[in-house]
Amino acid sequence: MTRYSKQARILVAVDCIIFGFDGENLKLLLIQRGFEPEKNKWSLMGGFVDPHESPEEAAARVLKQLTGLENVYMEQTHVFGEIGRDPIERTISIVYYAFIDIHKYEKQISDDYHAEWFEISEIPKLIFDHNIMVEKAQEQLRYKAALHPILFELLPEKFTIPQIQTLYEKVYATELDKRNFSRKLLSTGLLIRQQEKDRLNSKKGAFYYKLDNGIYKDKFEAFLNFIPNPQALLS
Amino acid sequence: MTRYSKQARILVAVDCIIFGFDGENLKLLLIQRGFEPEKNKWSLMGGFVDPHESPEEAAARVLKQLTGLENVYMEQTHVFGEIGRDPIERTISIVYYAFIDIHKYEKQISDDYHAEWFEISEIPKLIFDHNIMVEKAQEQLRYKAALHPILFELLPEKFTIPQIQTLYEKVYATELDKRNFSRKLLSTGLLIRQQEKDRLNSKKGAFYYKLDNGIYKDKFEAFLNFIPNPQALLS
Repeated sequence: MTRYSKQARILVAVDCIIFGFDGENLKLLLIQRGFEPEKNKWSLMGGFVDPHESPEEAAARVLKQLTGLENVYMEQTHVFGEIGRDPIERTISIVYYAFIDIHKYEKQISDDYHAEWFEISEIPKLIFDHNIMVEKAQEQLRYKAALHPILFELLPEKFTIPQIQTLYEKVYATELDKRNFSRKLLSTGLLIRQQEKDRLNSKKGAFYYKLDNGIYKDKFEAFLNFIPNPQALLS
Repeated sequence: MTRYSKQARILVAVDCIIFGFDGENLKLLLIQRGFEPEKNKWSLMGGFVDPHESPEEAAARVLKQLTGLENVYMEQTHVFGEIGRDPIERTISIVYYAFIDIHKYEKQISDDYHAEWFEISEIPKLIFDHNIMVEKAQEQLRYKAALHPILFELLPEKFTIPQIQTLYEKVYATELDKRNFSRKLLSTGLLIRQQEKDRLNSKKGAFYYKLDNGIYKDKFEAFLNFIPNPQALLS
């Protein structure tokens, strides 16, 4: 027996969702689709899975080909498999997502493909079901960030408390109490205060902090309840 | 343009993981695979996605065909797509999982297919990567149950506090402090105490409770931190 007989083989694609933070805004990386149908429309970075690669390898290859980005840790999220989701041919798409610090990867992003960052609140109409894919990934991001300090992966090495607060506020589309947030955050023991202050964004200045990587790895649970009632914010 | 040219089409399968609770033990439903390779070996309920059904429809169909179970709410978990995972032909498998009350579905499970419940701690060696699929789904179950009261879906309509505690202990493979657990659980306001007591399992007896469905739907967030440091228990 060399193959399963009688079974239909189906096109399998991957789509990559890259969230980024530039210190002020939560953004999404998009490209203009390079082939028909919907050519030149805004799209996630997508492509088909080749016979000799895993979906993870396909996602990394597609992301690199279409944006220049590499060595980005992407995680699987949802599979979209409705029959008519691609008008040309039935395609099942496995969606991957990542969160990055925009400045850190700035140089990698290739101009060849016109990849562009959009603010989350200003995402254009995307092809196929890509808008729904993004919504689902945002939900997942909120869910995970309520339990894990993953949002630190969106921050530069040195950051201020107001910067982290902005990031959480953007992700949860909510406002957080300043004093409460700062107190809870510092009580996790995850942050090491630096000598310098950021004096650009306020007169008083805000100390820079670095992440204590040892504790970061050991102490995920300290983040539990970090966001007040995250579930109320999730659908 | 009627099809994408040059792209490889791939076999896509679904595998269904059904966790069940019988009031005492957390169990997993398995069948003996009906075709080669690995015929008669223990396996998850799996089958190929047909051209005219979504993966969700395929999962429901396969589960019904192989066990008789229907109207079980299954959720997508991980996709397994490594090249060599099926020795016959490259197959990408989308895994679905559900939690059910074993007694509630008892009559549905068909004898035709020899589906059998195994205690989680006594799962046999399964075909292909199915053991890894189960581990991943258990991880997801722990993760979700730390945030949502989903484990109530495994309980009968009327249940005792010791029963819920047993369920949580089985899912997290840990022991929980009895008084603390009971206090936290009651403080969620999710439970309505009944007149009757279960007198089979202790001399003093344990009151039966029912779930307040209105609050259950509104108040997921009350479960936050219900399990002490769930993250410490997750890999």
